[in-house]
Amino acid sequence: MSVADVGDAGAVRGAGVSGDDGVANEPPKRRGRRPAGEDTRGAILTAARSQFAEKGYDATTLRGIARVAGVDARLVHHYFTSREELFVAAMNLPDVPQRLVGRILDGPPEQLGERLVRQFFGLWDAAPDRRQTIAGLISVATSGSDGATMFRHFLTDAVLRRLAAACELDDPELRASLVASQMMGAAMLRYSLGIEPLASADTEDLVALIGPTVQRYLTG
Amino acid sequence: MSVADVGDAGAVRGAGVSGDDGVANEPPKRRGRRPAGEDTRGAILTAARSQFAEKGYDATTLRGIARVAGVDARLVHHYFTSREELFVAAMNLPDVPQRLVGRILDGPPEQLGERLVRQFFGLWDAAPDRRQTIAGLISVATSGSDGATMFRHFLTDAVLRRLAAACELDDPELRASLVASQMMGAAMLRYSLGIEPLASADTEDLVALIGPTVQRYLTG
Repeated sequence: MSVADVGDAGAVRGAGVSGDDGVANEPPKRRGRRPAGEDTRGAILTAARSQFAEKGYDATTLRGIARVAGVDARLVHHYFTSREELFVAAMNLPDVPQRLVGRILDGPPEQLGERLVRQFFGLWDAAPDRRQTIAGLISVATSGSDGATMFRHFLTDAVLRRLAAACELDDPELRASLVASQMMGAAMLRYSLGIEPLASADTEDLVALIGPTVQRYLTG
Repeated sequence: MSVADVGDAGAVRGAGVSGDDGVANEPPKRRGRRPAGEDTRGAILTAARSQFAEKGYDATTLRGIARVAGVDARLVHHYFTSREELFVAAMNLPDVPQRLVGRILDGPPEQLGERLVRQFFGLWDAAPDRRQTIAGLISVATSGSDGATMFRHFLTDAVLRRLAAACELDDPELRASLVASQMMGAAMLRYSLGIEPLASADTEDLVALIGPTVQRYLTG
């Protein structure tokens, strides 16, 4: 799987995700300037995918994306307020991690694990095309390509470190990576492999089963 | 990733696994009869990969593999005592699940989780090419290809059901799939994504961290 396919992650499940950028179902590996008639936002998203894939999440800048897209950097800021928001749009993610982390933190500390599991599965269970998106992302993440590097950077920088810092716990990176191991594995069985009964379980059953594990990893 | 690559799983990490069958580094997608001069065992393994990929683990028979390999069925039984052993050889797995499950069960029930985690990581940490093999298997499993179906059948039939039955617990399939979710996720972060500190953690640290989770899923 090519790194340029990452934004079309859902497509690897054979059903194609209709992104709101209008370019999600195009053939992979197209780079650089868009043909005349395509919109600026689409050009920025295409440039973002190639830059994130080539340079990784950390080293990619909005200025660099603007240059590849052939647009003024101010236009990138007009459409996307941050690198994270641009990444989320380029990858067809349903929400920015910052908001997700905010919802996880909002409540009693002893229910952190429950809230994390509920938010995580709620995000991907919301619609069939989201299930395809997460399955596609996991496929890219495990492909050994540059896309895997990008995914790793995003997962550690935008999700795990933020969550760990917000919880103000000791050993934040170890705790966050343990949580990620449980959640990525559950997503893999539920969405990629479709192994029962995890594949069809209700979200609240998963909260009751997996929530205590996540709670122990965060605060135990 | 093609289903025919499954037996060369390690190769997707860019380093190629030297299997003991002498055909592990050949180009993917070759099927059917081998050219003259290649050994019978290699022909059987190649036929096995294509049959497992096309029909899945459950529907593949030793007789069907013999037919595709163009050899007498007795020859298949000469080289491989069971379908499982043939699958393990075809996929370059380091051990048959039956022996692994035996070692996990051998000891006090309250340390089942610890033993499972120790056996699992011990298996894949033993050598660098084993790390490549498990990373390659995870890549195939999440690829959405026929290889993923095969992997799912093998995981549920040869590993999870056997483990669940041996433990004689209630809700065996739910418990086994929860254990698999934690172990596959930990393998994904450790071997596929290389996320620290999980990637470099000592096996015994992982036993202490993840063992209680597995114990709770099995007996809690």
